[in-house]
Amino acid sequence: MEFNYPNGRKYRVGPPKKDTHNVKNSITYGKRGMTLEEDLNETNLFYLSQGIAVIHKKPTPVQIVQVDYKSRSTAVIKEAYFRQASTTDYNGVFNGKHIDFEAKETQNSTSFPLKNFHEHQINHMKNVLNHGGITFVILRFAKTEEIYLMEGQDLMVYWDRMKGGGRKSITKEEVIACGHRIEYGFHPRIDYLKTIRHLYSL
Amino acid sequence: MEFNYPNGRKYRVGPPKKDTHNVKNSITYGKRGMTLEEDLNETNLFYLSQGIAVIHKKPTPVQIVQVDYKSRSTAVIKEAYFRQASTTDYNGVFNGKHIDFEAKETQNSTSFPLKNFHEHQINHMKNVLNHGGITFVILRFAKTEEIYLMEGQDLMVYWDRMKGGGRKSITKEEVIACGHRIEYGFHPRIDYLKTIRHLYSL
Repeated sequence: MEFNYPNGRKYRVGPPKKDTHNVKNSITYGKRGMTLEEDLNETNLFYLSQGIAVIHKKPTPVQIVQVDYKSRSTAVIKEAYFRQASTTDYNGVFNGKHIDFEAKETQNSTSFPLKNFHEHQINHMKNVLNHGGITFVILRFAKTEEIYLMEGQDLMVYWDRMKGGGRKSITKEEVIACGHRIEYGFHPRIDYLKTIRHLYSL
Repeated sequence: MEFNYPNGRKYRVGPPKKDTHNVKNSITYGKRGMTLEEDLNETNLFYLSQGIAVIHKKPTPVQIVQVDYKSRSTAVIKEAYFRQASTTDYNGVFNGKHIDFEAKETQNSTSFPLKNFHEHQINHMKNVLNHGGITFVILRFAKTEEIYLMEGQDLMVYWDRMKGGGRKSITKEEVIACGHRIEYGFHPRIDYLKTIRHLYSL
């Protein structure tokens, strides 16, 4: 039988770890606004279990520097660093189509800052589009809990506007005009493929 | 200006780390037979740079337990564990088709052990097939440096044979008969999309 601490950390029998004294500078990962991610994971699990689509979130890219191999099954990573993702976070296949997207949220209520995206993610989305994939972003306004799907080709317009010296965000009005509102549901929570099905007649 | 240690580890100004005394049980990650992975990464970079396809390796899935946040940019992961992948390692888009594959090698010279694959990876490949994606495995016989591409639907046959109580590996003869040999090239190193293009008339 397995026990978990309330924070989800596994209870393990053995002497206390020596590297946990640095409490002030340590936080448990996974407490920073995971709701959008959790909702999308639940949605993707629903799609998978219902045979609708196969879409997964990619693991967080990590540069592993030091591993303690007490045994094969108890390898402990002792030093690693977060790397910047070179692609979008989510991809998979839906009705024979390659699906590729990124999900971001903002605390802003009047605009969606473009700094949420990285140049190489935008380039990746351009590449996916060029090769016949479907790409989009899911934008969440946290304060009003509004979710919009914006197609990759539309995001590029605002990205290129910024690159040309224009504003560094998409105004809320532009998101409403150009994006597609997704209402929260029960099961699945964020039915983004309903929008994709409609947009691409799938 | 940045400096790197010869092992690629970043040089950082500051006091020496206290957790590096455990040398006997520590090894630097990335020294265990990375050649097939490196060759495929190089191949995928070639495909990307030539506008042939957008295919990436997924990051290694890691369960992060403890992070030291000295500052946003110097977050150090102090405790993490390897998780088992729930999908294949590589995916992307090629000529509008979703591509999904796994790459494995064996030191055996007479057969390819099926223990190289996990049940959920096989299930993932079945799902991808059901949704119209293209899925396959790249099998490498390390001793003879032979590489074969075997389509997912063919791998299933041998997997199901094992599940039915049959042998736990694919014989070399079966790999030769059922798979498609890929000769090592210079650039790209492993031109697996040439085989896919041929098999699917892309």
